[in-house]
Amino acid sequence: MAGNSFGQLFRIATFGESHGPAIGVVIDGCPAGLQIDLDFLRFEMRRRKPGQSSLTSPRNEADEVEILSGVFEGVSTGTPIALLIKNSDAKSSDYEHLKDVYRPSHADFTYQVKYGRRDHRGGGRSSARETAARVAAGAIAKQFLAENGIKLYAWVSAIGEIEWAGEPDSTQIDAIESSLVRCPDQKSSARMESEIEGAKQAGDSLGGIISLRIFGVPPGLGEPVFDKLEADLAKAMLSINAVKGFELGGGFAMSRMKGSQVNDSFIQSNQQIRTRSNYSGGIQGGISNGEQIACRVAFKPVATIKQKQLTVNTQGEEVYLEAQGRHDPCVVPRAVPIVEAMAALVLCDHLLRNRAAKI
Amino acid sequence: MAGNSFGQLFRIATFGESHGPAIGVVIDGCPAGLQIDLDFLRFEMRRRKPGQSSLTSPRNEADEVEILSGVFEGVSTGTPIALLIKNSDAKSSDYEHLKDVYRPSHADFTYQVKYGRRDHRGGGRSSARETAARVAAGAIAKQFLAENGIKLYAWVSAIGEIEWAGEPDSTQIDAIESSLVRCPDQKSSARMESEIEGAKQAGDSLGGIISLRIFGVPPGLGEPVFDKLEADLAKAMLSINAVKGFELGGGFAMSRMKGSQVNDSFIQSNQQIRTRSNYSGGIQGGISNGEQIACRVAFKPVATIKQKQLTVNTQGEEVYLEAQGRHDPCVVPRAVPIVEAMAALVLCDHLLRNRAAKI
Amino acid sequence: MAGNSFGQLFRIATFGESHGPAIGVVIDGCPAGLQIDLDFLRFEMRRRKPGQSSLTSPRNEADEVEILSGVFEGVSTGTPIALLIKNSDAKSSDYEHLKDVYRPSHADFTYQVKYGRRDHRGGGRSSARETAARVAAGAIAKQFLAENGIKLYAWVSAIGEIEWAGEPDSTQIDAIESSLVRCPDQKSSARMESEIEGAKQAGDSLGGIISLRIFGVPPGLGEPVFDKLEADLAKAMLSINAVKGFELGGGFAMSRMKGSQVNDSFIQSNQQIRTRSNYSGGIQGGISNGEQIACRVAFKPVATIKQKQLTVNTQGEEVYLEAQGRHDPCVVPRAVPIVEAMAALVLCDHLLRNRAAKI
Amino acid sequence: MAGNSFGQLFRIATFGESHGPAIGVVIDGCPAGLQIDLDFLRFEMRRRKPGQSSLTSPRNEADEVEILSGVFEGVSTGTPIALLIKNSDAKSSDYEHLKDVYRPSHADFTYQVKYGRRDHRGGGRSSARETAARVAAGAIAKQFLAENGIKLYAWVSAIGEIEWAGEPDSTQIDAIESSLVRCPDQKSSARMESEIEGAKQAGDSLGGIISLRIFGVPPGLGEPVFDKLEADLAKAMLSINAVKGFELGGGFAMSRMKGSQVNDSFIQSNQQIRTRSNYSGGIQGGISNGEQIACRVAFKPVATIKQKQLTVNTQGEEVYLEAQGRHDPCVVPRAVPIVEAMAALVLCDHLLRNRAAKI
Repeated sequence: MAGNSFGQLFRIATFGESHGPAIGVVIDGCPAGLQIDLDFLRFEMRRRKPGQSSLTSPRNEADEVEILSGVFEGVSTGTPIALLIKNSDAKSSDYEHLKDVYRPSHADFTYQVKYGRRDHRGGGRSSARETAARVAAGAIAKQFLAENGIKLYAWVSAIGEIEWAGEPDSTQIDAIESSLVRCPDQKSSARMESEIEGAKQAGDSLGGIISLRIFGVPPGLGEPVFDKLEADLAKAMLSINAVKGFELGGGFAMSRMKGSQVNDSFIQSNQQIRTRSNYSGGIQGGISNGEQIACRVAFKPVATIKQKQLTVNTQGEEVYLEAQGRHDPCVVPRAVPIVEAMAALVLCDHLLRNRAAKI
Repeated sequence: MAGNSFGQLFRIATFGESHGPAIGVVIDGCPAGLQIDLDFLRFEMRRRKPGQSSLTSPRNEADEVEILSGVFEGVSTGTPIALLIKNSDAKSSDYEHLKDVYRPSHADFTYQVKYGRRDHRGGGRSSARETAARVAAGAIAKQFLAENGIKLYAWVSAIGEIEWAGEPDSTQIDAIESSLVRCPDQKSSARMESEIEGAKQAGDSLGGIISLRIFGVPPGLGEPVFDKLEADLAKAMLSINAVKGFELGGGFAMSRMKGSQVNDSFIQSNQQIRTRSNYSGGIQGGISNGEQIACRVAFKPVATIKQKQLTVNTQGEEVYLEAQGRHDPCVVPRAVPIVEAMAALVLCDHLLRNRAAKI
Repeated sequence: MAGNSFGQLFRIATFGESHGPAIGVVIDGCPAGLQIDLDFLRFEMRRRKPGQSSLTSPRNEADEVEILSGVFEGVSTGTPIALLIKNSDAKSSDYEHLKDVYRPSHADFTYQVKYGRRDHRGGGRSSARETAARVAAGAIAKQFLAENGIKLYAWVSAIGEIEWAGEPDSTQIDAIESSLVRCPDQKSSARMESEIEGAKQAGDSLGGIISLRIFGVPPGLGEPVFDKLEADLAKAMLSINAVKGFELGGGFAMSRMKGSQVNDSFIQSNQQIRTRSNYSGGIQGGISNGEQIACRVAFKPVATIKQKQLTVNTQGEEVYLEAQGRHDPCVVPRAVPIVEAMAALVLCDHLLRNRAAKI
Repeated sequence: MAGNSFGQLFRIATFGESHGPAIGVVIDGCPAGLQIDLDFLRFEMRRRKPGQSSLTSPRNEADEVEILSGVFEGVSTGTPIALLIKNSDAKSSDYEHLKDVYRPSHADFTYQVKYGRRDHRGGGRSSARETAARVAAGAIAKQFLAENGIKLYAWVSAIGEIEWAGEPDSTQIDAIESSLVRCPDQKSSARMESEIEGAKQAGDSLGGIISLRIFGVPPGLGEPVFDKLEADLAKAMLSINAVKGFELGGGFAMSRMKGSQVNDSFIQSNQQIRTRSNYSGGIQGGISNGEQIACRVAFKPVATIKQKQLTVNTQGEEVYLEAQGRHDPCVVPRAVPIVEAMAALVLCDHLLRNRAAKI
């Protein structure tokens, strides 16, 4: 199976290059009868789009989504939903100097070797612009989840060395979107902003960590032994550009603790079976247990920096490169809706797959 | 697609419960012409099998693998290779007391909810016994990789709070298997052993971290944008019982560093394009770049402990549970061949998939 | 995806060679809660097995099916059901003379070219023995269908030039199994038997046609535009050894008729929407319409005949071949349960897939 | 897996409704390095498009294909190729009267039941307009096949009761496209034309048969035991609107013949192993044997006729319907490029899949 589709029953296929005429996505398997809220779709697109603030790339894309199929009188029909996003502000001339050189820690070299050629303009298919299609699909997915009582949100819990390890309370959740860096804690948010500003001044870049929570997941989602819910979430996250790590629930820290400390005791609560703690992160044996799903995603710093770097050209000669083009010093805040979108797609898929579990 | 198969072109489907008559695996897509080394297959099975030392479960399984198909005169024929492993030392009576109770942080509850029933004997399908089938398949996969110049090995870099952060040199690689805990550093190995011994005495359990290295991977493996090589590795690892985290190359630590620190400069070396550092962990843009693939996998402590724990029974009443049955206080050392097996399966699959990249 | 699995949500993977130790099948995705009737499973196996009468191959296989997993206390658990069938009466020595020669219209040559080698004993994987695994899986599938009110049966409507074009009434349906050739019409059955007897005497072989009916299919099964119900049925049938044609409803004959003759008018009947005729064969636009599904499957004559035939050996030299080994002069009667099994698998898969159609 | 994609390694996903803004296709897995000939793409689109002659629907679609991605400087890059075809001449008002009625032998009723709603305009997704996307993808597939020495063509061998059973010689192959009905035999072509003209006058419709030949297929394509080459071809053909039957090589007629008549003897010819006859239709044991692949596809008459027909409305009441809208009295001539396109997609997929057969 070629690698540009994701999911089984709720399945997306994305296409498009950064500087081609358009990018887009086909959603196959969205159940019929879903009311499509276009305002929400636009809202989600704005959350990811460049040019949001002085901290992000000045590329100016309208990111308007055209629905080409699968929706009739505002409702999904069960046929493929094709979403198209035109590229309008592509400045390919900015990339001419990259035609013959491999940018460090970019995909230039690997695409060239794998395919024997590449569309160098704006990074082509390897550009994070592709993730706009994921966010568009994710906006539909979130609407299907909402119909099923499932909500999710993510936030930035670290930018570089600035970390906020807290768990947002309900007022802070609302504050996420009003923070330029999408950190729910005001103080940390301010420190992260200045951290990014500093990196920008230095022509450098930063990474960070995004935390994700999913609520209202019924117990039973996940298909052992390989398509465990956390396995599909991990794949979803690692498929996002610049992601280098994933952890569920207690994660890496849990590897240093004892069973007696991290076992999640079952309790009875309002006639429901719940767990007293949630080190499991809402998934046990690969199947959701009804608790909040909690995970964290690590992003490396953006590869494009304004400093001079050693690299090689397509002739294999060592050269020095100074990047041009428009880039974010830190993509992590803009990646929040991408993380949410990928999680939403995984959940939709498993909601549908779980319908086949019992006779 | 039901969840018990893994891979696309080099594809496995596993089956079997812990206390059923047998477990096994069908490998579909192993190319024809591969010489199958049965001694190596047995060697790999021994590495995973229980009863290796006082540190592991006393369950005594021969774990002999019968090849039922797909191999003729010692060579793979291109047809499915079915491998069967009989269960011989299943003591189901040990599990009678678990019939009506949900063990904390186990899959008892989630299987019951998902399927409306479960085979409670020895954990049924959710038991780590299932991973024996993965190791068997992985042994075939490793042989195919070896034909292609690819080698891999893993080791324990942490047990509980005891961590060895080093990179093994060539003599230490050989030492991995002679360490009871599969840590290449002798001193750390001894400390880890006593840590496990301590947990055992306390009726408690430990987690840990396994590090993996893959050598000789040609540039070009990985199928963006969703089936990136690291995405499939992440999924593979998170599908293993008790795994809670995955990181590639610089991983979570990289999220705290700057682009100027972690960008991997390309250099020319012996007519080949290489990178000077390897924070990318051998994968860029989802495609291998020819460098060593490096990742880490976090395991939570084993859920079964000998201490009394609060939980609920199938009537939803809170009860206290004291585990019986045979269990490892720490599965991490035995998980080393499992991590390797899953990685080998991913690599085989991508080796085959990459054959379709160019005309 | 390697080619030895079939179906998406109700998915089987078969393995095994004609003269290897065993053949078998893993069913992944059978919903939990299905009561498994072993007597029915055995009954189905007997229907396909060789040695049923003087008209079939004298190979004597017990064809006993061992359930290795996925069933607990007689009920499916939702985990993979592995079924094993040992090969007991393989006489590989009968095939020694075929080691270096390609039998006409067999798969010897094509397997050799594709895989660079082959297990020549009894035809290896290309042997119709593999279909025993399909029948075993089909027996489980039929039980799931029965739970959903779906029944199906097939019969032989032609052997060579002897055709019975009728539609069996209810008494004739019961007569199918008591006919040696599985033709519900007694007279035709007798003529078919003597036709086969004649071919056997002449050292020749015969083909034929099997008709299939599926009842109780709810409207809504089928996934346009590619996984139309008839498309998956066609694939299922053409995957059976020796099948050369498939037609649905009016089939090839319908291509010679006019729209005004073959359009199926909708009518109201007992508060249900039904069609007055059924040229559509129960499927419209790729989706079942609630009417009987009707199709026909064409089998070529068995390739193995006792007459001397021109062919080439593995050196490419032309030689004459006289077949030995045990073979049916006509496999069509024994193929009836295979056709049913494949249809049952398709229906199960689409029953589960259709659960995802609406929100 | 939702049903709107086809193929494994050379994989297409189509989208779009007859009267929506656009239809299209995403090709995922087209190898990099393929020179894309736009003139050929346009040529293929013209072959399928309506309004070709007085015999076809007067709907006037430019059917211009926009390439949105995956092609750079005229060459495929290995990333998804998205092709967009705008709908320009959709007259939805023609379909208002069909909003509340189920046309006989159409998909109106089954879509309504399956999805609980439908886009009734022009048949929505069930319209044959969707096949334009297949032809566009097929045009790319044919170019990849041509690079591999594989050519294919189809022709009309029957319209209603007018049949031409011949095999076209080389001059006749060139004549196919100059025949209004795509029959290579001039006399039969004329008779077919007048047959269609007659049906048109009578407000009736006709079916027919298309024959397909594929040349230059190397031995080895096909993935037993389920993804046999003929099984995937059968599925491809039965997924086309109005197709009711498929046969390979000798097909249904072969079921009436004897093994001694239809076995294809192997012979040596110019150092190659060939067969003397080709009843097998170029495929043995599910794998191509290097001979010409030959199959036939049966189309039922178009469901839309101008005569008054009994049917039911969405309230389940019986009503009489007189069709309006623009329709072909016979789609078979326009289906020739569709049959070719589907065959080309199957072949591309198997060419790529076969690359994984040997080590």
